[in-house]
Amino acid sequence: MSMDANLTLHTDKYQINMMYAHWGHGTHLHRAVFDVYFRKLPFGNGFAVCAGLERIVDYVRNLRFGEEELAYLAEQEEAYAPDFLEALRQFKFTGDIYAVPEGTVVFPGEPLIRVEAAVMEAQLIETAVLNFLNYQTLIATKAARTKQVAPNDMLLEFGTRRAQEADAAIWGARAAYLAGFDATSNLRAGMLFGIPTKGTHAHAWVQSHDSEANAFERYAAALPDQVTLLVDTYDTLKSGLPNAIRTARWLEARGKRMQAIRLDSGDLAYLSIKAREMLDAAGLPYVKIVASNDLDEHIIFNLKAQGARIDAWGVGTQLITAGDQPALGGVYKLVAREKDGDFVPVIKISGNPEKVTTPGVKDVYRIVNQQTGKAEADYIALKGETDVSQGERIKLFDPVHPYIHKYVEDYEALPLLQPIFQGGALVYKLPTLAQIREYHREQLALFWPEYLRKLNPESYPVDLSTAAWELKMSLIEQHRK
Amino acid sequence: MSMDANLTLHTDKYQINMMYAHWGHGTHLHRAVFDVYFRKLPFGNGFAVCAGLERIVDYVRNLRFGEEELAYLAEQEEAYAPDFLEALRQFKFTGDIYAVPEGTVVFPGEPLIRVEAAVMEAQLIETAVLNFLNYQTLIATKAARTKQVAPNDMLLEFGTRRAQEADAAIWGARAAYLAGFDATSNLRAGMLFGIPTKGTHAHAWVQSHDSEANAFERYAAALPDQVTLLVDTYDTLKSGLPNAIRTARWLEARGKRMQAIRLDSGDLAYLSIKAREMLDAAGLPYVKIVASNDLDEHIIFNLKAQGARIDAWGVGTQLITAGDQPALGGVYKLVAREKDGDFVPVIKISGNPEKVTTPGVKDVYRIVNQQTGKAEADYIALKGETDVSQGERIKLFDPVHPYIHKYVEDYEALPLLQPIFQGGALVYKLPTLAQIREYHREQLALFWPEYLRKLNPESYPVDLSTAAWELKMSLIEQHRK
Repeated sequence: MSMDANLTLHTDKYQINMMYAHWGHGTHLHRAVFDVYFRKLPFGNGFAVCAGLERIVDYVRNLRFGEEELAYLAEQEEAYAPDFLEALRQFKFTGDIYAVPEGTVVFPGEPLIRVEAAVMEAQLIETAVLNFLNYQTLIATKAARTKQVAPNDMLLEFGTRRAQEADAAIWGARAAYLAGFDATSNLRAGMLFGIPTKGTHAHAWVQSHDSEANAFERYAAALPDQVTLLVDTYDTLKSGLPNAIRTARWLEARGKRMQAIRLDSGDLAYLSIKAREMLDAAGLPYVKIVASNDLDEHIIFNLKAQGARIDAWGVGTQLITAGDQPALGGVYKLVAREKDGDFVPVIKISGNPEKVTTPGVKDVYRIVNQQTGKAEADYIALKGETDVSQGERIKLFDPVHPYIHKYVEDYEALPLLQPIFQGGALVYKLPTLAQIREYHREQLALFWPEYLRKLNPESYPVDLSTAAWELKMSLIEQHRK
Repeated sequence: MSMDANLTLHTDKYQINMMYAHWGHGTHLHRAVFDVYFRKLPFGNGFAVCAGLERIVDYVRNLRFGEEELAYLAEQEEAYAPDFLEALRQFKFTGDIYAVPEGTVVFPGEPLIRVEAAVMEAQLIETAVLNFLNYQTLIATKAARTKQVAPNDMLLEFGTRRAQEADAAIWGARAAYLAGFDATSNLRAGMLFGIPTKGTHAHAWVQSHDSEANAFERYAAALPDQVTLLVDTYDTLKSGLPNAIRTARWLEARGKRMQAIRLDSGDLAYLSIKAREMLDAAGLPYVKIVASNDLDEHIIFNLKAQGARIDAWGVGTQLITAGDQPALGGVYKLVAREKDGDFVPVIKISGNPEKVTTPGVKDVYRIVNQQTGKAEADYIALKGETDVSQGERIKLFDPVHPYIHKYVEDYEALPLLQPIFQGGALVYKLPTLAQIREYHREQLALFWPEYLRKLNPESYPVDLSTAAWELKMSLIEQHRK
């Protein structure tokens, strides 16, 4: 992958200020534990699709303060002592990172990443880790919603021109693909990640010729094995379709089959039904219909409900920008810190109860009912709690309304957090994108459809162990005194 | 600048398909003229702030199909003839580009960029040009709205963790700065573009210490000249403020002045008023108040209306993602093509009248009333029309309702499109970011406030010359036959 930019300063200034202040007081190597999680699902969806880990791994492995970075810091920040810059020159990430694999179906409040590292290292990476995880998880989730309304159609990511700059285009294409899209139009994403690429032609191709018929025939002559013709430059049904049908016959005469037509404006339900009739009447049932034009999962759902005869959907702006909610609010919160050689749990209090953090070093398990094979709840336990990892009877209760509870014992507890870095060394074998796609499909099969539906999904339980809950309550109590 | 990635394949596959089809038919060197414009202003704003040109210039200058790109195309696209790949190996941009300078106040329907180039070259760059222009223009416009509600306060761009990946963070920081923001938290943006950087500390700093008081004092000891203390980790008024006041006194005893406190949660109006009282009562009128927490121009406007005593605003998610409208719909439309050695105008018809393109090679002038010094309208004329460039009497009329018209003669006509590339050579001296900021301020002064206001602005006229309008009407008529 040619991602040569040095992203070490892709961080907020306050991270370096805190690193400097720790360094000045000799506390920079004290270990700290941070959890990464989000508090609220995007789009009213019932789940999110975790993505961004490969990008994060690449970033962490390449963290280095180069000469340009050090010169900038020296020049801009006369407050930093020269010895500190020397410490940055030696900097590398030596900590541990645990993370949920990409493609995992995840929920609010559960740690998706746990960083255990010298506080100086853990602070530096906060900003970029959130930036990468937030964006890819957001887009993968949006893509999963789209896949859900058109599970058997071809889904094409067409958003580059409206993406929020170049990185968003390629990482968004990757996130869409891992959550079920079939291809992207972005060639660089294809090259970097091995995503299949698809493309047709633009209105400009038609306008560059004396007639639409001539434009279509020339396109077919040049690329006879991948002819998808855009039929709305002048008039979809009166000009585009008849010309496309002529081109399909011209191809048939040469032993080739036209792939599709593309509709990019007008009433897509009506036009696709009419186009299907015209193509079928012309003996071209194999010619597919692609639609584009500011589509999203709602419009696709409605078009399908109206009987639209569309085989493939080109989804652009609304997917690549997550148009209806363009940010996932993932946070990175200190949950424990080293003191006198031990980890002590820490909390952040807030007037808003959802913003109170859950203290302590924690693991997350997906509790799968052995009878049904379906996930019942995710269960957050303190590290070292053995009952869940050994499959003993556990109590599941709602952390907001603890009186709602039940006991489960015939379950499998799947640990969600996997070791990624240990002592700074990558210990995780990054799966291929094809493996992530497959894993994501398997993940969806773990859940009852009530949790997955697009509109008004049931809320999937994310519970704390009794010990984790009691720790939280005791720290809240302690701070209220 | 260390932007080493090769962005030549940062394009839609259909561009390369069209290039290939043109190449196959020998039409790839025919010249074509494309206009870049948007149809609708974002956020209900009355204007947009053009941005992205520097990025586009850098991209165009570095267009090269390297070995990795060629190998990818050869492997993925067995349809492409080897000679075509050889042509790509020799590819460079040799055309002309005209563009509106960054920081210019711009409006819907007027060309912001005009590309005149061999159609093969002009197609390749469409996707990236739109990607870069759309995003930076969107964020600069959002930033200008924010600046308008807090013209005398300090505005800080704090959005990296919620940005749509790394490029958005830095180019968004740049766009915000050129439209009036004062600083960014992103150090890489600071390094690459020379934007001032600002940062305080996080809750984690406070949680990393045994007490808030200890955390504050240690921060002040490490960075005594830039102490801004985040006061809401435990309780803003009962704990954060008293501890911050103690720290300010500790600094005073050492001959230093604390810069500010930062509020990041709770009722910012109430808390800022109380905090101001407490700071003033403590003899610390110089300590400023910074606020953050999902702010945007609407919240800032309302907080100020409620008498909030906030001196500086940290604006994150809503700015860097343009939360209420995360895409600008800029388009790139063929308006003329070479035929038999001449340019002939072309049109794209649409059932939606706003989507009908304006044919022909055109210039844009800002018509400034000599009496008032204010802009009256933007005026799109066909290239070569001399009356407007020579200051003769012109007719201004509404292209949708042509009966609404007037004549003007005592005006200055400022051409908006500047030559950027000529024959592939850069002929434009890129201004510094400081110059762009200053130019943007001057631009705003050209307009009556009615066009600039945040809510329900007047619609600024963008008119066609009579000749441009008649050409459009005649091509529509021709296609309707």
